[in-house]
Amino acid sequence: MSTTWGNNIKLTIFGESHGAAIGGVIDGIPAGIKLDVEFIKKEMARRAPGNNNLSTPRKEADEVEILSGYFEEKTTGTPLSFIIKNTNTKSKDYSLFKDIMRPGHGDYTGNVKYFGFNDYRGGGYFSGRITAPLVFAGAIAKQILEKKDMFIGAHIKSIYNIEDTSFNELGINKEELLSLKEESLPLLNKVVKDDMEEIIIKAREEGDSVGGVIELMVLNPGKGLGAPFFDSVESRLSQILFSVPAVKGVEFGDGFNMACLKGSESNDAYVIENKKVKTKSNKNGGILGGITNGMPIIFKVAIKPTPSISKLQETVDIGTMTETTLEVKGRHDPCIISRAIPVIESVTALVMLDLFIDRLKEVNFN
Amino acid sequence: MSTTWGNNIKLTIFGESHGAAIGGVIDGIPAGIKLDVEFIKKEMARRAPGNNNLSTPRKEADEVEILSGYFEEKTTGTPLSFIIKNTNTKSKDYSLFKDIMRPGHGDYTGNVKYFGFNDYRGGGYFSGRITAPLVFAGAIAKQILEKKDMFIGAHIKSIYNIEDTSFNELGINKEELLSLKEESLPLLNKVVKDDMEEIIIKAREEGDSVGGVIELMVLNPGKGLGAPFFDSVESRLSQILFSVPAVKGVEFGDGFNMACLKGSESNDAYVIENKKVKTKSNKNGGILGGITNGMPIIFKVAIKPTPSISKLQETVDIGTMTETTLEVKGRHDPCIISRAIPVIESVTALVMLDLFIDRLKEVNFN
Amino acid sequence: MSTTWGNNIKLTIFGESHGAAIGGVIDGIPAGIKLDVEFIKKEMARRAPGNNNLSTPRKEADEVEILSGYFEEKTTGTPLSFIIKNTNTKSKDYSLFKDIMRPGHGDYTGNVKYFGFNDYRGGGYFSGRITAPLVFAGAIAKQILEKKDMFIGAHIKSIYNIEDTSFNELGINKEELLSLKEESLPLLNKVVKDDMEEIIIKAREEGDSVGGVIELMVLNPGKGLGAPFFDSVESRLSQILFSVPAVKGVEFGDGFNMACLKGSESNDAYVIENKKVKTKSNKNGGILGGITNGMPIIFKVAIKPTPSISKLQETVDIGTMTETTLEVKGRHDPCIISRAIPVIESVTALVMLDLFIDRLKEVNFN
Amino acid sequence: MSTTWGNNIKLTIFGESHGAAIGGVIDGIPAGIKLDVEFIKKEMARRAPGNNNLSTPRKEADEVEILSGYFEEKTTGTPLSFIIKNTNTKSKDYSLFKDIMRPGHGDYTGNVKYFGFNDYRGGGYFSGRITAPLVFAGAIAKQILEKKDMFIGAHIKSIYNIEDTSFNELGINKEELLSLKEESLPLLNKVVKDDMEEIIIKAREEGDSVGGVIELMVLNPGKGLGAPFFDSVESRLSQILFSVPAVKGVEFGDGFNMACLKGSESNDAYVIENKKVKTKSNKNGGILGGITNGMPIIFKVAIKPTPSISKLQETVDIGTMTETTLEVKGRHDPCIISRAIPVIESVTALVMLDLFIDRLKEVNFN
Repeated sequence: MSTTWGNNIKLTIFGESHGAAIGGVIDGIPAGIKLDVEFIKKEMARRAPGNNNLSTPRKEADEVEILSGYFEEKTTGTPLSFIIKNTNTKSKDYSLFKDIMRPGHGDYTGNVKYFGFNDYRGGGYFSGRITAPLVFAGAIAKQILEKKDMFIGAHIKSIYNIEDTSFNELGINKEELLSLKEESLPLLNKVVKDDMEEIIIKAREEGDSVGGVIELMVLNPGKGLGAPFFDSVESRLSQILFSVPAVKGVEFGDGFNMACLKGSESNDAYVIENKKVKTKSNKNGGILGGITNGMPIIFKVAIKPTPSISKLQETVDIGTMTETTLEVKGRHDPCIISRAIPVIESVTALVMLDLFIDRLKEVNFN
Repeated sequence: MSTTWGNNIKLTIFGESHGAAIGGVIDGIPAGIKLDVEFIKKEMARRAPGNNNLSTPRKEADEVEILSGYFEEKTTGTPLSFIIKNTNTKSKDYSLFKDIMRPGHGDYTGNVKYFGFNDYRGGGYFSGRITAPLVFAGAIAKQILEKKDMFIGAHIKSIYNIEDTSFNELGINKEELLSLKEESLPLLNKVVKDDMEEIIIKAREEGDSVGGVIELMVLNPGKGLGAPFFDSVESRLSQILFSVPAVKGVEFGDGFNMACLKGSESNDAYVIENKKVKTKSNKNGGILGGITNGMPIIFKVAIKPTPSISKLQETVDIGTMTETTLEVKGRHDPCIISRAIPVIESVTALVMLDLFIDRLKEVNFN
Repeated sequence: MSTTWGNNIKLTIFGESHGAAIGGVIDGIPAGIKLDVEFIKKEMARRAPGNNNLSTPRKEADEVEILSGYFEEKTTGTPLSFIIKNTNTKSKDYSLFKDIMRPGHGDYTGNVKYFGFNDYRGGGYFSGRITAPLVFAGAIAKQILEKKDMFIGAHIKSIYNIEDTSFNELGINKEELLSLKEESLPLLNKVVKDDMEEIIIKAREEGDSVGGVIELMVLNPGKGLGAPFFDSVESRLSQILFSVPAVKGVEFGDGFNMACLKGSESNDAYVIENKKVKTKSNKNGGILGGITNGMPIIFKVAIKPTPSISKLQETVDIGTMTETTLEVKGRHDPCIISRAIPVIESVTALVMLDLFIDRLKEVNFN
Repeated sequence: MSTTWGNNIKLTIFGESHGAAIGGVIDGIPAGIKLDVEFIKKEMARRAPGNNNLSTPRKEADEVEILSGYFEEKTTGTPLSFIIKNTNTKSKDYSLFKDIMRPGHGDYTGNVKYFGFNDYRGGGYFSGRITAPLVFAGAIAKQILEKKDMFIGAHIKSIYNIEDTSFNELGINKEELLSLKEESLPLLNKVVKDDMEEIIIKAREEGDSVGGVIELMVLNPGKGLGAPFFDSVESRLSQILFSVPAVKGVEFGDGFNMACLKGSESNDAYVIENKKVKTKSNKNGGILGGITNGMPIIFKVAIKPTPSISKLQETVDIGTMTETTLEVKGRHDPCIISRAIPVIESVTALVMLDLFIDRLKEVNFN
């Protein structure tokens, strides 16, 4: 089953791009949490289309209606359900795609899996739009984590061939981490911003798209979160990260680069600082044996180029079972990275909250 | 909870490196499967230590005793449980590690998580030895999958700075794929073998270790396996891959390289071949929208260098809370990649069987 | 976590009695099922209040809006979500109950569990109203099961001290079983109907309520459903039956009466009929070793009297922590049994569909 | 999947009556619990056969070997696995049952479910012997709960037509509750003991068996355990109680008797005692809205007569598909109630511990 996630926090999401509404149900949110509605709106806006000239001009309000689990401005502890009505759905744009499969999308596999009964309009359940409920749930999770002094932020590590620096190369504090959220292209090294914009604009002009890499940091994750074997922090995070459409790679700490190192280079030496155990470097990204060691959690996520491009492509018509070509008209993101960042942050926040709650169960018996 | 995995196949594993035994319970294995015991032994041997001069000289028979779920040489359909007794456990080698934390290992995080009560000998529950039950379970899964014409094989993509070619660069058939299992260093381009051996032997001589990358292929996975949202094939695979000790990165298809492409380069065009829909290239690694499209599933896994090295390392003594140094004596693998391959194959086989069974539910209602 | 149910069919429900809406998400519904909307409405109406003079005069339309998972009149295979708006909510009726705990209700335990943050109006998440989503989901499950020739029906076994006969005492066919749904008081022995009505009307006049027992039958459940150990048919059914508010007892076959028998009386002898194995009697209610044996599944459910009565009751004010008395004014059901029947049937249908799908996974390997 | 149970405590059990061993894996046991091995042995002995002249003369040592998760006499927090070797297995006694189905047993349904591949010897996976791992796990759970001042005890409410009094009719304290464990026939009203023994001995002499009812109490369960909807305390308990072979009915508090009451009789009035909220009566068995209210949890379990009787029975031979008769020779329990009590207590202890741990998550956020 695929639509419900989590051990302690249980998130269920639903909806199709061109149906009546998308939404979700979050169970296990602690009772009595006063929600910062403005913060939630701001988070939703970061993901919403049409925010700036680098994303799709399509605009969608993404207004959230809470239906349950929320009373007198606080969470009740019972399932918090919410919907986001689909308002800007031009179905005729998409009817073409019933039989003509867009390369790189879930059109064909969705057709196979659901025996042709899936709602194909706008990608249906495979649409990136289905990540909006994740951002809503993540915004709640972030608020709870911040009370526990845990903070999550991310930047663009690369777009196409333009590279930003890495978290590990420079110290970063909470304020710097959170200030990344204010940027349209969140970067550590702002010098590369113009080059990145240029790449994106050029891709749009060509009717093409570009991919990129997001790097995320969890500051003050605490020690002892996660559990071997199958609930390692890496397992929990990667499972939900790879649920996000377009994610094709995940690496923790130095990741694939660690494969090119020797043990004497990749082991993070332990030191004592302020009477606490720390590691001198953080090549393991804050996780050892599947458990947090208190250092920042750092990982990178590879996002493939948006498959919706207007360039001519070879494909098939599964109605007639013939080869054909396709030009996808319409309003597309030439680069999804900026809008993907709040999604990646949100699923991370959900995992961290779930692990945090898991840890609450472990402290009380001895 | 961390020790039980799976939706249809439920695998529970247990054991510590220096306890009485390790083992597992597999529920959901179909009834009536005749087990090929010789095949299972061979698979176990591929992971076992001491197979050749490139791994640790420590030898462990890894003989499996089946306790239940197996009757008259066939599976019964009830929980199949098994144990592997620990025979070659020299506890004195490890007692040192109660308080002195080995960098790169789970010693410190295990101590934090379990409040100091964990069995620290030989890494305890964090030992790579705990992957032996995975290989046993995987060997059963492989036998079942092969009846359905699905085959799993892997090769070393790189060790340290020595690179093999990739699956995607050359056609490969079932026989070639399975023949990789016969090699001590399974490679597509055997020309690099000598260089790799040299790197490993040099690491051992230096008291150091090297990491590497494994590339795996699932041939004939079928179409329609996996499910959006949270049970995408990538989600299911990455979750268990990151449970395997030392895995720090996972990428599907062209993975992180896709982030450097344009959409017009990364979209796999559809074509029709023998009246069937296929893709011309396979940059998405056989998965679109989280669902298999029938092309081979291809992914890469980054394995960090074994943290057990005999070089002098900085670390801490958590008994006295002082900084200290450490030289890990004993029998270590300078490179774990060869032994990791059957583990990576096995967890892949478990996921594929689980997804295959999931798909059985979907065909019968219309 | 408490709000999501099922192994193959995953049902998530949400909502509070006086919130914006109640609803649910059903994942795992096979794709391509054409929904009989009229049948669903009829089922919803059976549970809805105000149907006849034996239930509460409060009327609620219980109109279901499907938000996703449904396209061109068929299920898509993706999560089917739905909401039922709360229209007839007079909050002032209930504000009294913030501090004054209604005996027999979840008011006090809800307050404890959620630290006083729960929506107490009308019982909030504890309201019987939350069973409406179960009936909607059950109506879909029934349609699918009927295609497989499996039928579910129930009657009132007793109300207060008035007893109906039992399924086992008389043969019953599909038509007779389904015709029970047409009755306001579904009975096998219609002679007792007047006495039951009298008991209920008298309870209402007294400002009191009465309890009763429901007996349910699943006709043609098939053989081999359910699994030892923890997924026995009795385990699966009782788990969800005891989730339904007011259920205090569940017994299968002859249930508690079996405890008064000898083995020679309680064992159901096997016979062969039309070349098929059957049992001569059905004291085990169609289940042996936790698995269906092909005979009708029969069980009984004890429903306690509605706790909402207008008679004067002793209770406490948890605001002032003083003892007090309470008269619950308003529109209450003197007997909930008739309205509980479609709920009991619905959760049974969900379990049977889940078990049916489980069984699909077992047939294909040998 | 059927062999793994629990949300926080995950218990996996395995084994067949005549296989090499039975056993289990318990994950989620808190680290650092010093196990009282003598207590565990005593609990195992309560369930073991051959304890007194009222049970089967078959003797089985039921010696438990712990394989992992236990180090220096304390739990480690990692999976605690254990096996119990089968020593007294006379397979020839049972080979007859391959084709001749014992009425009332799981022989036939097991054969159907597993397509004839199940280990039929001694009932295989359906044997009551598989409850031994539950008692071991329960003995650990009880030790942890007792540290939290929660106590579990049970008595025989009835055997055949001989009735004991009920917990609710008399006050009972912790010492009285625990002292019940010392009795071969634990009763509140010891006057009925001789009659019960007589009934059992007579059943044995007749080659027959008798059923009965067990009543259980959880003293000091605490408030706020359990969660609506699907994790109600009744749901959690009934699910595992109905997993225990021979259980055919479960009722909480006054259970089926509540169906014969009026609301004014069945509502438990609230009072304040020592500044705490309590109920005056306990007809709801300590559970309201699916959540504990702090009163003792009380429930009854109907156990059917042991189906193994030596009287002549009608049955079928599924090899030849003919009707036949059967006399089950061998060592059988004429009444399983006494041996079932520690099993019922144990599964209750597991549920209570699981719910207790669930509650730990809920206190920390406001």
